[in-house]
Amino acid sequence: MRIAVIARIFGILLTVFSLTLLPPIGVSLWYHDGTHAPFTVAFIITLVTGLFMWLPVHDLRQDLRTRDGFVVTSLFWLVLGSFGSLPLIISPQPDLSITDSIFESISGLTTTGATVITGLDTLPPAILYYRQQLQWVGGIGVIVIALAILPMLGIGGMQLYKAETPGPVKDTKLTPRIAETARALFVIYITLTVLCGLGYWWAGMTVFDAVGHAFSTVANGGFSTHDASMGFYANNHAIMAICILFMFTAAINFGLHFFAFRYRTLSHYWKDSEFRFWVTLTVTAALLISLYLWSQGIFNAGSSFLHGVFQVVSIGTTAGFASENFSAWPAFLPYVLLMLGILGACAGSTSGGIKAVRGMLIMKSGMRELNRLVHANAVVPIKVNAKIVPERVTDAVWGFFAVYILSFFVLTIIVMATGEDFVTSFSTVASCLSNIGPALGDASAHYGSVNELAKWFLILAMLMGRLEIFTLLVLLTPAFWRH
Amino acid sequence: MRIAVIARIFGILLTVFSLTLLPPIGVSLWYHDGTHAPFTVAFIITLVTGLFMWLPVHDLRQDLRTRDGFVVTSLFWLVLGSFGSLPLIISPQPDLSITDSIFESISGLTTTGATVITGLDTLPPAILYYRQQLQWVGGIGVIVIALAILPMLGIGGMQLYKAETPGPVKDTKLTPRIAETARALFVIYITLTVLCGLGYWWAGMTVFDAVGHAFSTVANGGFSTHDASMGFYANNHAIMAICILFMFTAAINFGLHFFAFRYRTLSHYWKDSEFRFWVTLTVTAALLISLYLWSQGIFNAGSSFLHGVFQVVSIGTTAGFASENFSAWPAFLPYVLLMLGILGACAGSTSGGIKAVRGMLIMKSGMRELNRLVHANAVVPIKVNAKIVPERVTDAVWGFFAVYILSFFVLTIIVMATGEDFVTSFSTVASCLSNIGPALGDASAHYGSVNELAKWFLILAMLMGRLEIFTLLVLLTPAFWRH
Ligand SMILES: [K+]
Ligand SMILES: [K+]
Repeated sequence: MRIAVIARIFGILLTVFSLTLLPPIGVSLWYHDGTHAPFTVAFIITLVTGLFMWLPVHDLRQDLRTRDGFVVTSLFWLVLGSFGSLPLIISPQPDLSITDSIFESISGLTTTGATVITGLDTLPPAILYYRQQLQWVGGIGVIVIALAILPMLGIGGMQLYKAETPGPVKDTKLTPRIAETARALFVIYITLTVLCGLGYWWAGMTVFDAVGHAFSTVANGGFSTHDASMGFYANNHAIMAICILFMFTAAINFGLHFFAFRYRTLSHYWKDSEFRFWVTLTVTAALLISLYLWSQGIFNAGSSFLHGVFQVVSIGTTAGFASENFSAWPAFLPYVLLMLGILGACAGSTSGGIKAVRGMLIMKSGMRELNRLVHANAVVPIKVNAKIVPERVTDAVWGFFAVYILSFFVLTIIVMATGEDFVTSFSTVASCLSNIGPALGDASAHYGSVNELAKWFLILAMLMGRLEIFTLLVLLTPAFWRH
Repeated sequence: MRIAVIARIFGILLTVFSLTLLPPIGVSLWYHDGTHAPFTVAFIITLVTGLFMWLPVHDLRQDLRTRDGFVVTSLFWLVLGSFGSLPLIISPQPDLSITDSIFESISGLTTTGATVITGLDTLPPAILYYRQQLQWVGGIGVIVIALAILPMLGIGGMQLYKAETPGPVKDTKLTPRIAETARALFVIYITLTVLCGLGYWWAGMTVFDAVGHAFSTVANGGFSTHDASMGFYANNHAIMAICILFMFTAAINFGLHFFAFRYRTLSHYWKDSEFRFWVTLTVTAALLISLYLWSQGIFNAGSSFLHGVFQVVSIGTTAGFASENFSAWPAFLPYVLLMLGILGACAGSTSGGIKAVRGMLIMKSGMRELNRLVHANAVVPIKVNAKIVPERVTDAVWGFFAVYILSFFVLTIIVMATGEDFVTSFSTVASCLSNIGPALGDASAHYGSVNELAKWFLILAMLMGRLEIFTLLVLLTPAFWRH
């Protein structure tokens, strides 16, 4: 770990991030909402800090190594999230505490989409715009880290997505591959955003809402400019359909999109084991839940289908938009949805959670275990995309799963110890750890009334989720700091 | 799978089990409580059924094979539990439905100790005695199955406890080893029961209560003859200490007791990795929770220590006695206790849950995973008792863990779907699946008000827990039934 290399990266990141504070200034001036000053102050602080870190080491030409990768990834969300909270801290409207500002900022950037703010519809437009944009910026960070960095670090079996398997990965050069991959992913991400925004606009959203919701849709973020979330548009079926389509698309491995983009083909999607697994699960769950809503007379047939499919896709992709107050649906449905969110969608997408590929590997291991009990000496290798998965990868997936479940229970108990009830604690931790957003109990409308201390642990949960836990844990091992 | 072999075993089991219905008849006659008739009828039905199955094949001299082992183990609790419910169904007092009778019987026999009955203190003595005895009978079943059968079947990594590792275990002869092991275990079990009962009696219990509580203590069952459970004796510190001592002893691998019994030594206990792991965890948790109770001013120092240690040992061993209404302790404490119970104590004991050895293997795998992220090519074998654990065993433990967590969530959602709230569903499923007993929410006093359909799923949870889930799942695979 070399301080200079890391300082240079964060110098660049903060300088680039400071530029994202300029559009809100424009929005503020356009709408005369009076928030241009806070954004300008935040811009200057962030830019100056960035340049201050970057310039002294700007001609440093050392490559980023695996060991640095852990540090950079771990700090990425925390550093950008902290600077990102500046406008919210400074702006008198909404009047957020420092805790709430950081919560909102990190929730936005990690694409969790849990909000502490109520009364969204009357907020200054620049603040609303900024929240949506935070999610969009976070979304591209998620994808680049998931596709270009985590496979190199070997977190939770993600080496499965490494193009080549070199010997010791400890100090492989990361930079060239990251830069090249990031560029292509960025083009795809922007294309999806533009298509989604145009769709929303065409279907009837204002330009402001179309842009804002396109940002949070392709990021599977879940922030909205309305308290009613996408429920504000529940009667506009075109908007609902577009939202479902783009949440779904953004929840697919961007590696597959990259392939489609380069080779002008679509057939490879269905050949991907994880995609097939996740689509089958999602379609089955959407149909069953729609049927259940209809059979219980909660909605008519059309609305049952609309809300059933919407909520399964929205929570399952960990976008977390609400088309309806689903926390009031028959008690077990919200938990089924939460479970789908905890599993999450495809690796290498903007979704959170455990990820479908890991769920699939765990399921296949379970089936193999059953088989082995009957045929003790059968050798049944586990395959993904017709290739045998190395034992090393399944080990990593198991480790990830165990640490995930353990973190889930420990965080739930900590949040309870701060004074929240079981339903609130369980659901907020599940939601934040899997970067879903909405929760149940006292947090079913928003997180505003959750106590201060609990909010800090939920921030930790969001970061742990985005860092796939192990990236953070590695930094706590003495072995990491030894040379 | 050969019907005749299995029929012969259940014929013998039922004939022997029918004899356990004779002592309650004696108790009933002694106390003139008028329940001798129901027990007599149940005795005759069970005996006749047993003989009817046994006699036609009594001279069959075929060995039990692995494949039959799955069927026998799976049916064991269900068959004995069903016949065991007969006295409760027939007896007018307590006036239990068929569902409740079967629930109570299977809860007793699987040593879960969840009860649907309230007003225990005024029940007919023979019924009270019978419930306690059911737990004791179940306890020896648990130990014999855990030590002599599951290692042969290879369920959830338990082949770790197999003395020798032959090639294909599919059709290894089980009978000689089972019979020999069972005899020695039975002697140890009876010795512990007698010591525990004498202790209780010496410390001040009536003979009736001393016998009854000795039965449910060494079985880590948790049934009591009082609604207040062991809280009835909370002011008698000698009784509390004896209870803690014997719950603890019965939660240790009986293989270690067997070794102590044969070689007159004690030093081997601390050499056992699982024992050390579990004792360390239990002592730490007991101290922390006692300190917390004291620091919060919930009890004075002495009572904090008493109830803290008692509840940690009682729930951690999955005995499930209550010294106090711990479900009303600060909200997160009952969940910490439930988590200790879900982990459970040592394999090969009367406790339930995941078992400490599996928790330890999962923890070690997690540590190895962390290590591998830093040192990519390091070869770090996982060891238990200084021996390298084969990959085959860790695979099985992971499979067990995943299926356990999945079953937990699915059963919770099913119980919610029957109309129970989240806290009740979550805690009853956790409690039954890990054979603990007490739960929270609407079931915090007893399970009487849980709806009928939910009770059947909780019965399934108790059986799944005792069968380590896989024994049951194997029967559902087509491969098992193919020849
Ligand atoms: K989200
Ligand atoms: K129990």
